[in-house]
Amino acid sequence: MTPQEEAQARARRAAQAARTLAYLDTGTKNRALLAMAEALLARQGEILAANTQDLAAAREAQYSQAFIDRLLLNDKRMAEMAQALREVAALPDPVGTVIGGTRRPNGLQLLKVRVPLGVIGMIYESRPNVTVDAAGLCLKAGNAVVLRGGKEANRSNIALATVIAQAATASGVPQGAIELIESTDRAAVMELMRLTQYVDCLIPRGGAGLIKSVLEHAQVPVIETGVGNCHVYVDESADLEMATEIVFNAKCQRPGICNALETLLVHQAVADRFLPLVAARLEAAGVELRGDERTCELLPQAKAATEEDWATEYLALILAVAVVDDLDAAVEHIARWGTKHSEAIVTSDYAQAQRFAARVDAAAVYVNASTRFTDGGQFGMGGEIGISTQKLHARGPMGLEELTSYKYVVYGEGQVRT
Amino acid sequence: MTPQEEAQARARRAAQAARTLAYLDTGTKNRALLAMAEALLARQGEILAANTQDLAAAREAQYSQAFIDRLLLNDKRMAEMAQALREVAALPDPVGTVIGGTRRPNGLQLLKVRVPLGVIGMIYESRPNVTVDAAGLCLKAGNAVVLRGGKEANRSNIALATVIAQAATASGVPQGAIELIESTDRAAVMELMRLTQYVDCLIPRGGAGLIKSVLEHAQVPVIETGVGNCHVYVDESADLEMATEIVFNAKCQRPGICNALETLLVHQAVADRFLPLVAARLEAAGVELRGDERTCELLPQAKAATEEDWATEYLALILAVAVVDDLDAAVEHIARWGTKHSEAIVTSDYAQAQRFAARVDAAAVYVNASTRFTDGGQFGMGGEIGISTQKLHARGPMGLEELTSYKYVVYGEGQVRT
Repeated sequence: MTPQEEAQARARRAAQAARTLAYLDTGTKNRALLAMAEALLARQGEILAANTQDLAAAREAQYSQAFIDRLLLNDKRMAEMAQALREVAALPDPVGTVIGGTRRPNGLQLLKVRVPLGVIGMIYESRPNVTVDAAGLCLKAGNAVVLRGGKEANRSNIALATVIAQAATASGVPQGAIELIESTDRAAVMELMRLTQYVDCLIPRGGAGLIKSVLEHAQVPVIETGVGNCHVYVDESADLEMATEIVFNAKCQRPGICNALETLLVHQAVADRFLPLVAARLEAAGVELRGDERTCELLPQAKAATEEDWATEYLALILAVAVVDDLDAAVEHIARWGTKHSEAIVTSDYAQAQRFAARVDAAAVYVNASTRFTDGGQFGMGGEIGISTQKLHARGPMGLEELTSYKYVVYGEGQVRT
Repeated sequence: MTPQEEAQARARRAAQAARTLAYLDTGTKNRALLAMAEALLARQGEILAANTQDLAAAREAQYSQAFIDRLLLNDKRMAEMAQALREVAALPDPVGTVIGGTRRPNGLQLLKVRVPLGVIGMIYESRPNVTVDAAGLCLKAGNAVVLRGGKEANRSNIALATVIAQAATASGVPQGAIELIESTDRAAVMELMRLTQYVDCLIPRGGAGLIKSVLEHAQVPVIETGVGNCHVYVDESADLEMATEIVFNAKCQRPGICNALETLLVHQAVADRFLPLVAARLEAAGVELRGDERTCELLPQAKAATEEDWATEYLALILAVAVVDDLDAAVEHIARWGTKHSEAIVTSDYAQAQRFAARVDAAAVYVNASTRFTDGGQFGMGGEIGISTQKLHARGPMGLEELTSYKYVVYGEGQVRT
């Protein structure tokens, strides 16, 4: 079997499974999710053995320690994956919800009913937990999933997918609901991205290179995820202590995550008071500052920022800083350099808050809160399969509802169109 | 300016306009729509003169009469376009609607607010009215639009777009809200499909070839529209008179539209009674029948159908007919050959109705009604920009709401993540 044939065969099986999954009852799906959690723990030995092989190969290939840490599975991470599946089982089933409806003048009764998307193609990198998280969320939303993880995690992913797919099937889920492409050949994933007859949606999850490649090659519709060049704007009227806490949290609490702060914008009227305050707090945490001219005048220790700094998602303890004339200049900066992910204003002025919320185009716009809240769990979705940075279909954190589509069911009594 | 440069310049202007359009008040948008309607009538002379040139060129190039009819503008069609704009003005503004919201345990107030998609790229064929309809719907939903019509209608489209864009700008709509690519070079549209930095969504509207080409080349997200290989299944328990009326209406009322019937499926238990009944009615209207073996036994006048017939969207007075063993066989046939557009069952059995509605995966599933109702107007949306046949973002008729996205606006009091 060629890599292309493998991709075709798995996508075809998934499409076949999706037809039954679409109306599988909630009880069966929940029992399957709990059985998958049990199976992960019961068969931990074989999974960790496969992971050990992946780790050895990664060490031999001299991958970074951070990379190897992402790849690593252990007791704790296995328990977390099992727990995540149990939490998905506890969430309400989105399928079948009537999200709209009307009676037309001709008597037709029109219902808009939530249905699964069908087959999700999930393309991701080195964290093997995505295999389990994505399979769990897709199953609960009634979708079949075709998984394609990073080649360095392939042995781990095969072991995980085998264990959870067997547990799902034993619980009454149709075979093919969880498929993993085992070939690490690029031709397999290229084929997956073209299989519009079987796959309804691709979700790439990983670095900018992966996302770009999927956008470039896919014919299947893609939900773009990930890149977050996020800003906090500190307004003239801001409570500067609150602003310091928000900036510190947004930058430092987990700098490697897409909702972390990358550029701080400060109103000129408060720059001289605010910048030394926040700089002291950030520098104590090891944050490097890169400022525009006005910032560097107030903070001589800051490096001079270049245009590239405004565009960069550092994902590290570096912060770009600019002093702006007013709110509109901040909005302008965000429109030019932002990635429409998460943007915040700190202000105590009602009109400025409303103006910022209306004018900034992003998945999440915050007033007086940290950008770090853009997350499925924090938004109350239970889990998330990614954070969409596009405007089509879903925007921001994607939970179970965002993994569904809808159909119109129309009840008549013989109506014809005249 | 090269064709690529034209596409870039127009998309850039549209993206700039979209930023202001996103929060333009409803009154201004409505006044602009009414002014556009007025301007179409006031400047009808120059529009019809341009159309006359397009018509002359099309006749010279020996296009079919049907093609030339689609291209034609006259008093009546101008009045219809103006009326369509007035109707869009009368529809409720979808932008700003709060479609969800919650207070999180940490006190954050989360609002999910409808916002425009941003910039819509509209790629279409020879009917110049699409220029006006699309511009009107996009404007009302707060979107900028970059239009690219068929080359045979280019003079008409330029005249229409010029008139409505000037009227819109004079009413306070930002310049760039309605852009039309004037170059008919293929390079221009190829470039438009790649401008992910400016364009949020492409909507192709036209024949299967156009849709396929856009899907193949676009990097901007696409909403697939159009192809409808629709079925009516006549169940064992059907009221055969009702079934005859529904089949006749779905096939004959407007056979060239995507929601028209293409394949009739009949339960074996009623085939001998139903087929002669419906055949008489259809043949009187000039419909050619192509049947499977069992159909041809009962209707000797029918031609033998091949596999290709099950796959074909005739858009003409031809109907494929198959006798099936039962409902599940009908569902199976639809899953194999259907395009997930519009599917109907005629039945008087409650359980069969529910089973069909649950198991058939299509934008619209009808019980005891004609497939011809899949239409924005019929569904009460006021207007439609196309009928989506994909499951991502929007499914079925797309009106104003389907031309929007959402954003989360989060109000806090200094919350940070711990």
